Amino acid sequence: MENGGSPRNQWCFKRNEELTRASAVTVRGVLNMVMEHLNASDPRPVIPLGHGDPSAFPSFRTTPLAEDAVCAAVRSAKFNGYSSTVGILPARRAVAEYLSKDLPHKLSPDDVFLTIGCTQALETILTALARPSANILLPRPGFPYYEAIAGFRHLEVRHFDLVPEKDWEVDLAAVEALSDENTVAMVIINPGNPCGNVFKYEHLKKVAETARKLGILVIADEVYSHLTFGGSPFVPMGVFGSIVPVVTVGSISKRWIVPGWRLGWLVTNDPDGILMKQGIVDSIKGFLNITSDPATFIQGALPQILENTPGDFFLKIVSTLKESAEICYDKIKEIPCITCPSKPEGSMFVMVKLNLSLLEDIKDDTDFCCKLATEESVIILPGVAVGSKYWLRVTFAIEPSSLDDGLGRIKAFCQRHAKKQ
Amino acid sequence: MENGGSPRNQWCFKRNEELTRASAVTVRGVLNMVMEHLNASDPRPVIPLGHGDPSAFPSFRTTPLAEDAVCAAVRSAKFNGYSSTVGILPARRAVAEYLSKDLPHKLSPDDVFLTIGCTQALETILTALARPSANILLPRPGFPYYEAIAGFRHLEVRHFDLVPEKDWEVDLAAVEALSDENTVAMVIINPGNPCGNVFKYEHLKKVAETARKLGILVIADEVYSHLTFGGSPFVPMGVFGSIVPVVTVGSISKRWIVPGWRLGWLVTNDPDGILMKQGIVDSIKGFLNITSDPATFIQGALPQILENTPGDFFLKIVSTLKESAEICYDKIKEIPCITCPSKPEGSMFVMVKLNLSLLEDIKDDTDFCCKLATEESVIILPGVAVGSKYWLRVTFAIEPSSLDDGLGRIKAFCQRHAKKQ
Ligand SMILES: Cc1ncc(COP(=O)(O)O)c(C=O)c1O
Ligand SMILES: Cc1ncc(COP(=O)(O)O)c(C=O)c1O
Repeated sequence: MENGGSPRNQWCFKRNEELTRASAVTVRGVLNMVMEHLNASDPRPVIPLGHGDPSAFPSFRTTPLAEDAVCAAVRSAKFNGYSSTVGILPARRAVAEYLSKDLPHKLSPDDVFLTIGCTQALETILTALARPSANILLPRPGFPYYEAIAGFRHLEVRHFDLVPEKDWEVDLAAVEALSDENTVAMVIINPGNPCGNVFKYEHLKKVAETARKLGILVIADEVYSHLTFGGSPFVPMGVFGSIVPVVTVGSISKRWIVPGWRLGWLVTNDPDGILMKQGIVDSIKGFLNITSDPATFIQGALPQILENTPGDFFLKIVSTLKESAEICYDKIKEIPCITCPSKPEGSMFVMVKLNLSLLEDIKDDTDFCCKLATEESVIILPGVAVGSKYWLRVTFAIEPSSLDDGLGRIKAFCQRHAKKQ
Repeated sequence: MENGGSPRNQWCFKRNEELTRASAVTVRGVLNMVMEHLNASDPRPVIPLGHGDPSAFPSFRTTPLAEDAVCAAVRSAKFNGYSSTVGILPARRAVAEYLSKDLPHKLSPDDVFLTIGCTQALETILTALARPSANILLPRPGFPYYEAIAGFRHLEVRHFDLVPEKDWEVDLAAVEALSDENTVAMVIINPGNPCGNVFKYEHLKKVAETARKLGILVIADEVYSHLTFGGSPFVPMGVFGSIVPVVTVGSISKRWIVPGWRLGWLVTNDPDGILMKQGIVDSIKGFLNITSDPATFIQGALPQILENTPGDFFLKIVSTLKESAEICYDKIKEIPCITCPSKPEGSMFVMVKLNLSLLEDIKDDTDFCCKLATEESVIILPGVAVGSKYWLRVTFAIEPSSLDDGLGRIKAFCQRHAKKQ
């Protein structure tokens, strides 16, 4: 070789740029950036209104029944071995029965695939659907993990809006306009992250009809299922499985407040067997075959957890969330520079709009969040992270007393930065 | 559109062919195929010599200390929340200390990334290394999951042989001949699956020197670390981290006999910081950012498990494996049509060569395994699944009494199918 420079003298491995791009857009990444602005010399506790994990707060401790179930499964020594690709049968049966309670059709264990949290469930379905030139319709604002996975799988993303003036309903005209013969699916998140909205039966039906007309699958992210506390009850998208095939993804992370346990599911609501015929079920199994499984003993504990959790526990969690959502909504109303288009009715979040014209020295949502972190030790998520610049996502799922404190600090911050009239 | 056929009237989603291809080659897939040949009317128990999961057998029950540690972590309610991307600090520190005991340098917690079993660890490093036109060198015979992931990530695979006549050492001349400027890494599995071999210090040093010369990374799969019972002690590849950067992957699955717990690690042995400089550490973090994490409470239990497992437990497991390996080797010697080139010294497997010229009506290894399943209710893995046609992989990690029974049945099968002289 000329100039004596053999490439063999250098290291042949280097950064995977795709991965860097894909992971830059996660909530985790943006929150880490905001947290770097915290001022260590502030003696007050940091108030985390940024992420949806209230498990550390006493009011949100999971039910002892779930802890007992896991310990019993470990002690039995029956679940130390590898799981099967799709998950162990008793656990799949339990999920089928748990979800069937709210459906017009009865799910079979074969409709259920156990996953490492809802995260792996959505990774699975997006991967199963990916093929050259395919595209997927995602909500804006949404949950950026979908964008990250789609990007990594070379699935083109097109965004439809959720309309704040209509309680964050899907802009169905946009869905129709965006879709073409390469569109494979649309995603809805209900109850909503980041909007805290809950879709009504009639609206979900229209979503199903639109998807059917377009020949696309509906992916229903119901990780916040049953966490509703407003006028609209939770309606699972699977109810419309005979109109259009629906893949529901969910987990025990949120309803049981155990996101660290990593147990979720992917469920096909497809009485007409369309997903099977189109090869999607095979692709789902194919992906699960080449990835890791949820811990077997947590699967072993699942029937007990799903069947026997006392109703009291759910009531307590939902009433705590309702109380927190109300504190949040009321306090935000008192702050002129941020407005909340509709009162949260579900999940753990609310989207609020930033009115920059009332603020003196704040450039945008990211600037707002970084300065808030520095001055008030309060963490909230810039809307840009979920697709909505000049908005903020506030988590109300924390101990109510801390929430009150945090919102008080946001108010003080806004007053200090308000434009002098 | 002509002929009235709008594509919108059909479903737009379809099978992901890449996934189908990738998952077809897994051990799980091949074993499922063999098991379909079982004869349900055979009253004898099925003897599973196909896979490496002895957790269901009394002699291989995990230590009560590990069960206690997990239950204590669950009961503490301190580990219900999400983990951080790389794993919680006390668990990473415990892995760093556990592995450092056998290394000349001290690992830091920052060298450790917790994963969902060793499976996710190797998925992570292969994904981190993938880029257009890159290739990776894999052992043959090997562990087909590497081929599955490499295929799925478009990482070209090139195979070097392990040489049966040399106790399954790496054919280093082949490694040199195969590699070019697009080669990013080579993989070694030590103790070996499927060969049951244990590499000696001097050989590992030569592996390191060869990799350094070629400018490639060494991925050391040490999921069977410390499961050795022959003349050669286990030497971690990380010992040679100052010659060449080494990424070690491992887990508690095998040494603690808890493969269903899904706790593993990826560790960089890289005193010169080359992986950091080349962007590989960023890529590892990037991938972990967009995938699920191991259950937080199992991470919480890890320090206790790694630090306080009684030595007795390890001794008992290793002596049971030693006993089983000896039964296996001795019994196989009595069967003319199969031969074992070297006595297993580690892991849970041995490779045996099929001598078809001594058999009457057996076409190949797959045919052997399918007929054996039907006639004797014994499951073993056709060598083709691990890259070696006309070989068989036999697991000896089962209850010794069942192993004896199983090998007796294999002998009867071979006698029945022997060519009449
Ligand atoms: C909309 C949405 N989907 C999925 C997930 C992931 O859930 P899991 O913790 O079960 O993986 C989250 C977590 O916050 C979420 O908000
Ligand atoms: C060589 C090898 N690597 C990795 C693994 C996966 O290990 P884990 O169960 O920790 O994911 C196995 C499992 O059998 C194996 O044999």
